[in-house]
Amino acid sequence: MHGTTTQGIPGSRVMRMTQQRCLELGRELFERAHAAEPGIWQRGWWERRMLEFTSADQRMQTQLFRFMEALPHMGDDGEVARHLREYLDDRTLREHLSLRFAASFDDPRGLFGRSVGAAVRRAAFLMARSFITGSNTREAIRYAERLRQRRMAFTLDVLGEATISEQTADGAAAVYLELIESLGAAAVHWPRIPQIDLGRAGPMPRANISIKLSALDPVFNPVDPEGVYRRVGARLRPLLSRARALGVFVNVDMEQFRYRDLTFDFFMKLLNEPEYRDWPDIGVVVQAYLRDADEDLRRLLSWVRRRGTEIAVRLVKGAYWDSETTHAVRWNTPIPVWTRKWESDACYERLTRVMLENANVIRPAFASHNVRSLAHVMAVAEELGLSPRDYELQMLAGMGDPLKLAVVEMGQCLRIYCPYGNLLKGMAYLIRRLLENTSNDSFLKQGFGDRAAYDRLLADPQEARPVSAAPPVRRYEDTFEDDGMLEFTNAANTGFGSAENRGKMTDAIAAARGRMVRECPVRIDGCEVATGAWMESHNPARPGEIVGRAARATVAHADRAVAAAARGLPDWSQRAPAERADVLRRAGSLLQQRRFELAAWLVLEVGKNPQQADAEITEAIDHCNYHAALIERMALRPRRRNVPGEDNVLVYDPCGVCACITPWDFPMSMLAGMATAALAAGNTVVVKPSSKATVAAANLVAVLHAAGVPGEALHYLPGGGDDVGAHLAAHPGVHIVAFAGSRSVAMAISAAAGVVRPNQLHFKRAVLDAGAKNAIIVDDDVDIDEAVTGVLESAFAFSGQKCTACSRVIALNRVHDAFCAKLALAAQVMAVGQPEEPATMIGPVIDDAARQAIAQYIAEGRNQATVLFEMGADRLPREGHYVAPIIFTDVAPGSRLAREEVFGPVLAVLRARDFEHALALANDSMYALTGGLYSRSPAHIERARWEFQVGNLYINRRITGSQVDVQPYGGARLSGGGARLGGPDYLLQFCRPRTISENTLRHGLTGSAEPAREPAASAMH
Amino acid sequence: MHGTTTQGIPGSRVMRMTQQRCLELGRELFERAHAAEPGIWQRGWWERRMLEFTSADQRMQTQLFRFMEALPHMGDDGEVARHLREYLDDRTLREHLSLRFAASFDDPRGLFGRSVGAAVRRAAFLMARSFITGSNTREAIRYAERLRQRRMAFTLDVLGEATISEQTADGAAAVYLELIESLGAAAVHWPRIPQIDLGRAGPMPRANISIKLSALDPVFNPVDPEGVYRRVGARLRPLLSRARALGVFVNVDMEQFRYRDLTFDFFMKLLNEPEYRDWPDIGVVVQAYLRDADEDLRRLLSWVRRRGTEIAVRLVKGAYWDSETTHAVRWNTPIPVWTRKWESDACYERLTRVMLENANVIRPAFASHNVRSLAHVMAVAEELGLSPRDYELQMLAGMGDPLKLAVVEMGQCLRIYCPYGNLLKGMAYLIRRLLENTSNDSFLKQGFGDRAAYDRLLADPQEARPVSAAPPVRRYEDTFEDDGMLEFTNAANTGFGSAENRGKMTDAIAAARGRMVRECPVRIDGCEVATGAWMESHNPARPGEIVGRAARATVAHADRAVAAAARGLPDWSQRAPAERADVLRRAGSLLQQRRFELAAWLVLEVGKNPQQADAEITEAIDHCNYHAALIERMALRPRRRNVPGEDNVLVYDPCGVCACITPWDFPMSMLAGMATAALAAGNTVVVKPSSKATVAAANLVAVLHAAGVPGEALHYLPGGGDDVGAHLAAHPGVHIVAFAGSRSVAMAISAAAGVVRPNQLHFKRAVLDAGAKNAIIVDDDVDIDEAVTGVLESAFAFSGQKCTACSRVIALNRVHDAFCAKLALAAQVMAVGQPEEPATMIGPVIDDAARQAIAQYIAEGRNQATVLFEMGADRLPREGHYVAPIIFTDVAPGSRLAREEVFGPVLAVLRARDFEHALALANDSMYALTGGLYSRSPAHIERARWEFQVGNLYINRRITGSQVDVQPYGGARLSGGGARLGGPDYLLQFCRPRTISENTLRHGLTGSAEPAREPAASAMH
Repeated sequence: MHGTTTQGIPGSRVMRMTQQRCLELGRELFERAHAAEPGIWQRGWWERRMLEFTSADQRMQTQLFRFMEALPHMGDDGEVARHLREYLDDRTLREHLSLRFAASFDDPRGLFGRSVGAAVRRAAFLMARSFITGSNTREAIRYAERLRQRRMAFTLDVLGEATISEQTADGAAAVYLELIESLGAAAVHWPRIPQIDLGRAGPMPRANISIKLSALDPVFNPVDPEGVYRRVGARLRPLLSRARALGVFVNVDMEQFRYRDLTFDFFMKLLNEPEYRDWPDIGVVVQAYLRDADEDLRRLLSWVRRRGTEIAVRLVKGAYWDSETTHAVRWNTPIPVWTRKWESDACYERLTRVMLENANVIRPAFASHNVRSLAHVMAVAEELGLSPRDYELQMLAGMGDPLKLAVVEMGQCLRIYCPYGNLLKGMAYLIRRLLENTSNDSFLKQGFGDRAAYDRLLADPQEARPVSAAPPVRRYEDTFEDDGMLEFTNAANTGFGSAENRGKMTDAIAAARGRMVRECPVRIDGCEVATGAWMESHNPARPGEIVGRAARATVAHADRAVAAAARGLPDWSQRAPAERADVLRRAGSLLQQRRFELAAWLVLEVGKNPQQADAEITEAIDHCNYHAALIERMALRPRRRNVPGEDNVLVYDPCGVCACITPWDFPMSMLAGMATAALAAGNTVVVKPSSKATVAAANLVAVLHAAGVPGEALHYLPGGGDDVGAHLAAHPGVHIVAFAGSRSVAMAISAAAGVVRPNQLHFKRAVLDAGAKNAIIVDDDVDIDEAVTGVLESAFAFSGQKCTACSRVIALNRVHDAFCAKLALAAQVMAVGQPEEPATMIGPVIDDAARQAIAQYIAEGRNQATVLFEMGADRLPREGHYVAPIIFTDVAPGSRLAREEVFGPVLAVLRARDFEHALALANDSMYALTGGLYSRSPAHIERARWEFQVGNLYINRRITGSQVDVQPYGGARLSGGGARLGGPDYLLQFCRPRTISENTLRHGLTGSAEPAREPAASAMH
Repeated sequence: MHGTTTQGIPGSRVMRMTQQRCLELGRELFERAHAAEPGIWQRGWWERRMLEFTSADQRMQTQLFRFMEALPHMGDDGEVARHLREYLDDRTLREHLSLRFAASFDDPRGLFGRSVGAAVRRAAFLMARSFITGSNTREAIRYAERLRQRRMAFTLDVLGEATISEQTADGAAAVYLELIESLGAAAVHWPRIPQIDLGRAGPMPRANISIKLSALDPVFNPVDPEGVYRRVGARLRPLLSRARALGVFVNVDMEQFRYRDLTFDFFMKLLNEPEYRDWPDIGVVVQAYLRDADEDLRRLLSWVRRRGTEIAVRLVKGAYWDSETTHAVRWNTPIPVWTRKWESDACYERLTRVMLENANVIRPAFASHNVRSLAHVMAVAEELGLSPRDYELQMLAGMGDPLKLAVVEMGQCLRIYCPYGNLLKGMAYLIRRLLENTSNDSFLKQGFGDRAAYDRLLADPQEARPVSAAPPVRRYEDTFEDDGMLEFTNAANTGFGSAENRGKMTDAIAAARGRMVRECPVRIDGCEVATGAWMESHNPARPGEIVGRAARATVAHADRAVAAAARGLPDWSQRAPAERADVLRRAGSLLQQRRFELAAWLVLEVGKNPQQADAEITEAIDHCNYHAALIERMALRPRRRNVPGEDNVLVYDPCGVCACITPWDFPMSMLAGMATAALAAGNTVVVKPSSKATVAAANLVAVLHAAGVPGEALHYLPGGGDDVGAHLAAHPGVHIVAFAGSRSVAMAISAAAGVVRPNQLHFKRAVLDAGAKNAIIVDDDVDIDEAVTGVLESAFAFSGQKCTACSRVIALNRVHDAFCAKLALAAQVMAVGQPEEPATMIGPVIDDAARQAIAQYIAEGRNQATVLFEMGADRLPREGHYVAPIIFTDVAPGSRLAREEVFGPVLAVLRARDFEHALALANDSMYALTGGLYSRSPAHIERARWEFQVGNLYINRRITGSQVDVQPYGGARLSGGGARLGGPDYLLQFCRPRTISENTLRHGLTGSAEPAREPAASAMH
């Protein structure tokens, strides 16, 4: 029985009576609320206009809310006016006449423009005012005091900025401390109001604050619970001690789902500490919209019982439904929340009963604006014989005020949740409230705006199960190609927030270590070939540790491998495409099954952290499944042009032998992309891995063989680039050279592949991915915190050793200094350390040569630019090829630091006069791989979409981590010469199209010849 | 009034009475027919089985009829058994149990297999027997005599093979003559039967034959009416004279629509000759299924009145409906026939009235098995006061026999159309009859098989307008990409069967000649650039005639042009794709408007005949419209991967500057393909045309400029390949080199393009179309006539100077000698002459150097192989670069003749042991462009689809003339390195894909950012 306790058996007489009572109480709440003075319904002109517009038009709502979200970061009133126009200059909004007026100024910086800007800003202030109870502690306390005059309790909540540095965390702690001090001091003078200040066990703290743990730690990373306990604990203990001393109640808020376990674990661990173990004036939150909320509460209750001192538990439904569902669907993880509104409501009622049944162990608080939920609380409490002193109700400031009055009139203890802080910084909070008020699922809108029949609103959610908006799903529309047959779903990454997964990873690394030194002989025709010479792979974090050693092949071996691949062609190419697809899908499954093991080798061989290594496995899985799906669609749904009298079909043949010369930065996923495309199309493959990542490549080759790729179709040929690689590129028996690596090698391969050599009966294709010098533009209207986070992740993850990594930041003048200041502070927080630790962000670079090359760039930078940030050498592990992450400003656009690929943890910041200049700087490069833009200006975003010349442009997000199918990947200029990996055109490069025309008229006899089977690919070699 | 004469006013009292009488007569016909002896309904077991199967299953019908069509060409009984199994081994037919039995033998060559083969062959014989009245003149005359015993007249029709040589035509004339002689001799002894032998004006010839004019001329080409008059006249006159002398009636049959005007014109011209002008015993046919049949009849009547002597006119509905509609839809020409059955029936009735009203001028004959049509003839005749002696009814042997008895009983003069000849050669005729009998529109099936209500069948077709099967349409299903938005239709070629069009072409050539010498200066940025040096284009048919002269550019000009193209990029690339598409469509319209003028220049400059030149213009138009449609679809429906929280779109940017280095064999269409792809994608273009076809290229460039391509986006740079061409290929400012031409130049361009040069900030792409050595395999079960025709057209049109031309024929051993014999005879018929004449098939080669190079191959061939055919030097024009077409047999597979591209009117025939060997020979080439297979073996066709390694495989049709969109074109191996021109992937080579990802979550605020406008392509250079 899903969360139902023994007392509350559905259908029982008691339950029926409680339901009846619930209806009565609900009707009373409605009636009292409607009887409340009408003045309280009044809203400001702007707010009413806004709600009117946005209820009518989804697009309008999106654009207006987006505008408001960006408002805090806009400069002067002229900027506000410009943004207003940009957000409203949308073809879907043209028909709204009133908007035309609002944006009818000629020049946003002119007098009229600026006065519109000022008016809009004021309007937003006024709107914020209705939900935010003050912009500083003093105002908030005064608001709280006014509430108490109306017999309402309060809890104060600080709206802060994102915590991305130790300084911000310290600042947040200071604000909390100040609040505790001043509240504690003020509360002493407040008269006790029995309705709200007396609990079951006597007087309760009159002062009450809510704290967000994430505000107290710039890392707050679920993969690192010990670190979080250490850092947050250090900042929180003084606050708790002071609160206890001053008699201030502290509520620990619950935030996004990904923080839930971290928060509960932290809370329970800390409150078990001797100093706090007997302190009852602290609370925590249970979110009923979570699918396992029942379990959360159960776990909490059992902990409270063990602890022996009561705490308060606040039951909410949850405030992040949109982003939780969105995130889960985006990343193919299970949706953690109930997807239908009634499920949350029903869960809320189940937990209500459990909490009230345990009112001797916890002090239950119920936060809701839903009359049914509130009435249900009151009815169950009555049923259980509890009094209003045994629990409290909670509501948000600025919402549902008549209902508050009704609740107070009915003698309940009501606490108001009072956010306060910088009004504009709280814009996100404001929007969440506005969204809630305009949502069709909103109880407030239904219950008061619409005045719908009470009884419908008061129905048991579990029984009524009203229809609600559908949850988001992954659905592609309006695509260039018809995806009817593309059965592909991205694999999901492993969640290292889970202790179980972290444990598996640790075990896998230990197991891999136990199998060292891994030997990787040359493999031709499925047979191991001894070459007599070996190349060793060292763990870059522990150079003394030999991870594996690969046989060093010679050009003679290369000739043997190419000849073997040519012999392997007829068999592999003539298998049905569906059979090849099955083999690749099987490889995808094997990768999935063995993902910890394979990721462990990546950690050890190239120094990725577990998340990065795991994400690479995900991408390799995706390549297997994607190319399987593509080749099947190509084969099963070829392009037909059957005209009367003639059947015409376009089929795709393989090209022949494909040499895959792969890099060490993505040694499995890049190889997986190239090899699965080649194999899917029916080509045979010779793999020449980077000598620095031979084990990773050998692992993938082994998986493909295990999945059913014949030894004759896939050959493993570790060797030197200068000899074996160059020989393959120039080999007359090779049809395609797929390469990813440095620009200079790519250029050499291009030149070699262009030459048709004696006995070469084809033009060779080169599929090239080369260097990069990727830039992120930071516009002057951004949320700097967001930009800083994205830039650091793009630039420094895996020590900047990704071709997609951010290497340049171009900050607009107005924001440059503020951005740099925060960037430097936030960079301090980055964890440099052992790659084996999930908490590590920056590990070693690949080898000592790389370290020295990077050091040269750094030395140049010290001479020519300004060091904005450099991590102290004391924070680097002593062993391993570590480079201290460094950020330069005042970097001259013409300098090597601004133009050349560094491939290490080095970031150059350039200053741009304006957006035009920023684009020019970004495009002034011989490379064009990835690029990023952080901006809240629709016009600038639109312009970047057209003019930012890169293969992959990312807007308002990190610029690394392209996903197969979702973000086809590759560069222009000297970054690459082929189509996009993980996209629909990539496979075509490994195919030769063929047109087959059959005259179907035979002596005047018509009728399609449509054959029973369709050829899809054959041996074309 | 649609063909209605004054007497027959619809709705008049007379008409109503006639309708009534028509019903009465129709009912009488039905009743008498049903009363006829039942034995006459009996069909053979095989035929009944066949009709049963085929009515139930369309696929079965197709396969069985296809099998029967191929039957005459199969070798022994084992071959019959093998084919039977292949045709029935079709997944759609697996459920037919009875078929499993028929094909259940283990080995087609085993005892059981061969006996099944023999049985099937006998069954086909028996079926043919029911429609074909004998296999020789003697049998046919005996059949005719038996008919006369039943009071039925006859006309004898010879089923012959296709006439593809003078020898066949002579043979056909001889058969006709023998028939006339023997019929004439026999008829003398026949007693006169008044019902069938007495006409209005007295006794009529008892002997009657039908002649097909196409049988008397291997050319019979509508573009050459004078030649047809000369050749057919020469063969026909002796027959007519002899027939007249012996009192034999001669009916001239009407065949396909494309021969209609040719036949009428010939007939009227010949019958106006003094010797025949007063001869009444000759007839011709009007086909009521033609949309302008009314006009045909009117024209004929007016001619008969002018001539002054009556003729017979036979009204039929028409026998080629399927192939006429199919052909028209295939080639986008107007459908010449009524598309609904009732329209033909109504037209038949209109013409019936007109013919009967003119029974004083012509002798009307009405051929039909439709009771309504026949009754209508009788009723109108009654209304007009005519007697059965004033007209005759006609029916086919072997069909509707009870109806024949009824007609005879009712006193009508009935003539039976009696085909005779080799039973198996007549298989096509047999199938046409079977199709007719199994068609749902068939009156015989409805009227007798179904015994449907008489009155429904006897309704006035003009009023009842019953639903009939839909005519064929051009409709593509089941395509790889979604073609929802691809608005493209192939343009149609000009019909040179029309005297008007031939006249326009002659005028256009004269006008072009008047504008010689055409000057083509270099054009950079839209301005003419003088270079001081000129390259002349000479008319290859008249080397003294200078067609044009182009300024010879230097590498300095090339640098200027590339720089100008780079400057032109921002403007052109940033125009909306739809705007670029409009420009290209406008170019297509201009080409259409000026097609005669532009084709004239091709005739003069490269020596194409008008049809070939016109087809090239068609292809150029298609490229304009196709790339316009593709870029619009790419821009308007980009591939989206919008996931919750993130919008992802894949757009296509241009690459930059594209150099188009074009050939002289398709100087307009190849350039159109390359340049419109490049321009559509937003690239700018530098055109380096072949120095042998500078005028043609200049014409296309001028059209593109006139259509709106800016001078800055398209530059014309005539010059040498070794200097200017090579310089462009290596130029660091060029992003794409598109080339079509020889293998050696393609290899040089490939090598040059592979090198990334100093200051080159990109990898260059090479889109290459190079040489070919195309083969056609002739299987041993083919209709040799069909294969011969296809081979000759593929090998010798435009003197073999197409990269797609057939250069090798690989004939299977069993058919080799017979094929060669016919090939040699048919080759004699090819017209070598002035390219300006539409009748010319083979013109000059491009220049004297080409002539000499070809002569070397021929000289080698004379030494190493056997000359099967060589055209007499006396048939070549004295002036011009002519090469006498030549065919070699006994060509060794390893010889240069079998391996190297000749590019002239030279064909090598190789002998293959079996199909396996034929495929091996075909694939044994460094090239892989086009290939052909003539076969009736489903298994061999299927195998070729998988194993014949070419870019374009053509089955049972010529291997030249690929159509844009329908047959994407291009080769593998050393024939080319790119994707298929005229296909969906070609454009991608001129694009760089770009992925744009926008995070649409803003502080938890969800909602797609879907912008108002979508970027599609920007300046990526």
